[in-house]
Amino acid sequence: MAKANNDTADHIYKVVELVGTSKKSADDATQAAIARASKTLKHLRWFEVVQTRGHIENGKICHYQVTVKVGFTLDS
Amino acid sequence: MAKANNDTADHIYKVVELVGTSKKSADDATQAAIARASKTLKHLRWFEVVQTRGHIENGKICHYQVTVKVGFTLDS
Amino acid sequence: MAKANNDTADHIYKVVELVGTSKKSADDATQAAIARASKTLKHLRWFEVVQTRGHIENGKICHYQVTVKVGFTLDS
Amino acid sequence: MAKANNDTADHIYKVVELVGTSKKSADDATQAAIARASKTLKHLRWFEVVQTRGHIENGKICHYQVTVKVGFTLDS
Amino acid sequence: MAKANNDTADHIYKVVELVGTSKKSADDATQAAIARASKTLKHLRWFEVVQTRGHIENGKICHYQVTVKVGFTLDS
Amino acid sequence: MAKANNDTADHIYKVVELVGTSKKSADDATQAAIARASKTLKHLRWFEVVQTRGHIENGKICHYQVTVKVGFTLDS
Amino acid sequence: MAKANNDTADHIYKVVELVGTSKKSADDATQAAIARASKTLKHLRWFEVVQTRGHIENGKICHYQVTVKVGFTLDS
Amino acid sequence: MAKANNDTADHIYKVVELVGTSKKSADDATQAAIARASKTLKHLRWFEVVQTRGHIENGKICHYQVTVKVGFTLDS
Amino acid sequence: MAKANNDTADHIYKVVELVGTSKKSADDATQAAIARASKTLKHLRWFEVVQTRGHIENGKICHYQVTVKVGFTLDS
Amino acid sequence: MAKANNDTADHIYKVVELVGTSKKSADDATQAAIARASKTLKHLRWFEVVQTRGHIENGKICHYQVTVKVGFTLDS
Amino acid sequence: MAKANNDTADHIYKVVELVGTSKKSADDATQAAIARASKTLKHLRWFEVVQTRGHIENGKICHYQVTVKVGFTLDS
Amino acid sequence: MAKANNDTADHIYKVVELVGTSKKSADDATQAAIARASKTLKHLRWFEVVQTRGHIENGKICHYQVTVKVGFTLDS
Repeated sequence: MAKANNDTADHIYKVVELVGTSKKSADDATQAAIARASKTLKHLRWFEVVQTRGHIENGKICHYQVTVKVGFTLDS
Repeated sequence: MAKANNDTADHIYKVVELVGTSKKSADDATQAAIARASKTLKHLRWFEVVQTRGHIENGKICHYQVTVKVGFTLDS
Repeated sequence: MAKANNDTADHIYKVVELVGTSKKSADDATQAAIARASKTLKHLRWFEVVQTRGHIENGKICHYQVTVKVGFTLDS
Repeated sequence: MAKANNDTADHIYKVVELVGTSKKSADDATQAAIARASKTLKHLRWFEVVQTRGHIENGKICHYQVTVKVGFTLDS
Repeated sequence: MAKANNDTADHIYKVVELVGTSKKSADDATQAAIARASKTLKHLRWFEVVQTRGHIENGKICHYQVTVKVGFTLDS
Repeated sequence: MAKANNDTADHIYKVVELVGTSKKSADDATQAAIARASKTLKHLRWFEVVQTRGHIENGKICHYQVTVKVGFTLDS
Repeated sequence: MAKANNDTADHIYKVVELVGTSKKSADDATQAAIARASKTLKHLRWFEVVQTRGHIENGKICHYQVTVKVGFTLDS
Repeated sequence: MAKANNDTADHIYKVVELVGTSKKSADDATQAAIARASKTLKHLRWFEVVQTRGHIENGKICHYQVTVKVGFTLDS
Repeated sequence: MAKANNDTADHIYKVVELVGTSKKSADDATQAAIARASKTLKHLRWFEVVQTRGHIENGKICHYQVTVKVGFTLDS
Repeated sequence: MAKANNDTADHIYKVVELVGTSKKSADDATQAAIARASKTLKHLRWFEVVQTRGHIENGKICHYQVTVKVGFTLDS
Repeated sequence: MAKANNDTADHIYKVVELVGTSKKSADDATQAAIARASKTLKHLRWFEVVQTRGHIENGKICHYQVTVKVGFTLDS
Repeated sequence: MAKANNDTADHIYKVVELVGTSKKSADDATQAAIARASKTLKHLRWFEVVQTRGHIENGKICHYQVTVKVGFTLDS
């Protein structure tokens, strides 16, 4: 999960849940969620994909919606 | 999950977990959690019931506790 | 999940489970399942990826198999 | 699950997944899904609630979306 | 889960699983299960809904069956 | 789950968890658990297999252990 | 899951959920569900047992109810 | 799960769910539940931790609540 | 879950997910997460352990990482 | 799970996942997996069925595929 | 799951769990795990994605980590 | 999960499942499993607790059995 370096070993992390969207791909929706999170949260460390879904229009995927959990270091 | 309108397709959503309580019903506990969330969060979009439980006193339900996940749009 | 527009708020949806296959990518297998569904089902609205797996030949992925749930509006 | 009467003991059942919507309550959304199913499927026997969610507008639940599995007898 | 009052902090609880039925609503079926449990078990403290299902007759819900876990204090 | 006959519609059921063992087969272990339960519990109605496992001796299954949930009607 | 032969690699599969019943055994209930499915569906390919349960009468299993998912090839 | 000795191979076990509490540690809460169970149940054989939680007061854990399943031999 | 006292029965709770780390024990990692949360959040009420993991160096656990959900009262 | 005899109480076990196949029955597929494991692994102690599935040809089960976890003692 | 050809119907498969990493995409991490497995294991047949996660540096995904289960034929 | 250092970013990891036992504590059983694994496996990196259980004798825990997944780097 979080990094194992000795200097970070006593850190506390918080995990938030986000949904990213993309017309291109599931990976791109994941990246969109993380890019948005990085605007307001420092020290993002890891993510985990929780769910991949999306909307369909005219028989085609119009966009992906990927739910991710994102972990970041809390200042001590 | 979130709405599929084209203008919102590239939005990012955040999901928070709340527990609403009510002496009346499970649905009412769900509404209480959402009403409270709407005081501090704008652009609430959807909810999902995660767990329904409650406390018993004198052999009767004294209140319901419903855990909900609530999704809302993050400003871009 | 389904769209929240007022005019569709009293719709009923059906959910079917499909497995799409592709030699190219997991996303492509998802699209293949949805493209096939759209030949016989009208009003497809959303999908959710349930499982991603595939077959291996000579030490390489020969194709992806993605199980998706697909939701569509039932005529009222 | 299905009924245990001797005369139905060798029946085969099919299970379909539906999403009912209602502005009123979660139970009402369940009933809406079953009412719609009964228009085209005979011999509905049981249901199971799989997920309860919904959409929020202006800080209030605008409608519930309840996913149910519905079982019915197949003609032998 | 159980109450946090200091005087009850070293209590042991037992959890039993019950299925309540009701023609009226899911909440009513939950209450029926708890009302029945309270006839033979003292010190009921909390419940958790495990499953909501029911039977259908003539295209309508004829009754709800709600499975609940109910926790109660064991005498020390 | 429980039977849908009108006369039993307002019954309350209790569910207990048992582990049956058999040297012969998984089904036989299930039957053993139910046969034992019927010695002390009246009105057994349904069962559900929760887990199938067992012990191995000298490279062969020496007995199956099947965990079942068993539901029965509580006297009203 | 589905077969890996090259000629079937771009097939799309549909998965349906059935409940088979049998007085004899769990395996027999599985076979009953598949036998019934094969009357109306061509190209059945695989099955997966989702749940094993059944009804009890007079302290004995009166029949097994096995829920299976069955996958079949959709014509392209 | 239960012991594999030949003489116990045809035993039937019952599983009950308990919640133990302790101000000291999660393991201590587990032991408390088992100690209480042993007052009224003979032949306890195994336990499994189902959930670890607890209450917080003044920013510190005031006690742990550990839910355990406990299996014991039924007299034949 | 949350306390059942009448005066708190209509409170709304929020649940956050944290990861605590400790070189000493799993319980200590849980405490670390809660201690950190109490620096910025008032009215912490309960926690639940979601996952216990950690890192290994030179064949020994160098620290535990425990993911906890922590619930606290929202001001009304 | 593993045996509780005092002399084996400080053993370490390894768990491997296998898929056995059989044209006859689910139990037979389980046995096939264990028989194969016993050719190369000593001290097999217990198994657990993880999944039961299989292939269909001409509307009939042509073989069962049962996934089992098998535990065995590691030499200390 | 495994192939259904008659000649392979009595094969036994083993399933191992691997984590592949890639800076490019989730699919690429899956392929990396399988490519590595094929160096030491013959007769790889299928894979299943168990978890998709990864690390973040400077607000961007620095690499994906995909956990896969990989099945292969054991020599009889 | 695994470490995020650039030099290890393209590593592949294998995950094995072990059961450690201890008369002392759950943490000690976890450590026992890892200590045993480190005798034959190099480059152990992380662990995850999958299940905590144990045996009871004379109304007391005689030993804990903790199932852990352990990840280690495969040589490239």
